[in-house]
Amino acid sequence: MTHPLDEALRLAPLDEHRWAGATHPAYANMVGPFGGVTAAVLLHAALQHRQRLGEPVALTVNFAGPVADGPFEVEARPLRTNRSTQHWTLLLTQQGQPCASGSAVFAQRRTTWGAAEAVPPAGLPPPEALPAAATAGRPAWVRGYDMRFAPGEEAFGLDGAEQAHSESRLWVRDEPPRPLDFAALAALADSFFPRVFVRRRRLAAIGTVTLSTYFHADAAALAAQGTRHLLAQARAWGFRDGYHDQSAGLWSAEGTLLATSHQLVYYRD
Amino acid sequence: MTHPLDEALRLAPLDEHRWAGATHPAYANMVGPFGGVTAAVLLHAALQHRQRLGEPVALTVNFAGPVADGPFEVEARPLRTNRSTQHWTLLLTQQGQPCASGSAVFAQRRTTWGAAEAVPPAGLPPPEALPAAATAGRPAWVRGYDMRFAPGEEAFGLDGAEQAHSESRLWVRDEPPRPLDFAALAALADSFFPRVFVRRRRLAAIGTVTLSTYFHADAAALAAQGTRHLLAQARAWGFRDGYHDQSAGLWSAEGTLLATSHQLVYYRD
Repeated sequence: MTHPLDEALRLAPLDEHRWAGATHPAYANMVGPFGGVTAAVLLHAALQHRQRLGEPVALTVNFAGPVADGPFEVEARPLRTNRSTQHWTLLLTQQGQPCASGSAVFAQRRTTWGAAEAVPPAGLPPPEALPAAATAGRPAWVRGYDMRFAPGEEAFGLDGAEQAHSESRLWVRDEPPRPLDFAALAALADSFFPRVFVRRRRLAAIGTVTLSTYFHADAAALAAQGTRHLLAQARAWGFRDGYHDQSAGLWSAEGTLLATSHQLVYYRD
Repeated sequence: MTHPLDEALRLAPLDEHRWAGATHPAYANMVGPFGGVTAAVLLHAALQHRQRLGEPVALTVNFAGPVADGPFEVEARPLRTNRSTQHWTLLLTQQGQPCASGSAVFAQRRTTWGAAEAVPPAGLPPPEALPAAATAGRPAWVRGYDMRFAPGEEAFGLDGAEQAHSESRLWVRDEPPRPLDFAALAALADSFFPRVFVRRRRLAAIGTVTLSTYFHADAAALAAQGTRHLLAQARAWGFRDGYHDQSAGLWSAEGTLLATSHQLVYYRD
């Protein structure tokens, strides 16, 4: 059986740099599709492009306008190919109208000195010892993830008692389980509930306007993670005049940093 | 007298969406120009575009290839204009070759509920009580900034004794002083020495591959900062196989978050 994410990533070639795809009901959001899967589709277009060099190290997606449920076109063009890096421009359109634009950097990585610096969230019980977050009454895409929050941190924000911070720490994986790869990681990087929901402990009208994800690990490290839960942590730096940011880290089950991801989110009171 | 940054931002119109500019010797780096000024030039092209709506909230610049000292062309095109947001695509070319690409999101901000979350570095003496960082023997652009590091944190990395972290905390402003605006802030967001220099306390061949800056404050808040030093803090999340990231915050002299900025950097051993 094909995983819903693989169905959502399915692209039919139109020409060398363009493909036809469609939103998938399994990843529907309140309005239109979950942005994480839109980001994954754009990255996937470059990943499967025959001129692709190396592996993704960075992805930026700008959500320029609403994506309607239904068909779309995706464009992935190598902008410049160097000896060990390749820069891509990405675009998702519906009826010729740009809905999401983006860029990606691919690279052939070499083994070098390295060091961890940010530490994964400590002290979380193993995922088996935590309840899966509720999905009832939430948009379809939430059921595409198994999230297990640190005790007391689920905070889908419903009692309206403002917190002093917006930090969440959790285990998260695709549901049903799916071996980790770059496309899945690109989507997981956007799977955090909006920080304004967490900080204010109430819902709000929101929309991500831009999202940048850095991949700290190669395909082999992602494959080694398999279908297990990732450790994740997200928080905002600030909320002001209709925009807040979010910075997140995603670590392997063993605590290796796999990705960091940053976004800016529009919100209404 | 015109400030060197304003000279570096000078663009001569070629057509509705294109301008001619040139690198400025005051912002020369080891090879080619300081990337922060390249980012500022791309943002400035959109800022002074006659179709511009609102103020920047996000800027991403991808450094696709080396920029040579000399003339360049800049393109800034509104990709999609909504009621309160506007998405831009940005490109810097030399002899038709893409050297930097990017995107920006502009918005008309409204007053909403807001909250600070990340706190500015605490306990730094005032800038007047700290020495200005050395600039001798460093690339020209370093002399374009007055940096005053927390005691012991200058760490331009020359004794080779690896540190356990790459955090830097400092006061920083344009040198000579210049009233803060979005272009200057976009450049300041890239003015941190590479985290690999700090962590390893030694120099390395490096290059930023992508940079995203989120603007948390409006033009009035930037103007209120005037020419004073900003409070800034930068650190990496991780270093691996030739790439490390950096996340930075920049606060006003009063401790208001003005920008957060994230980047991915290529490094060699």
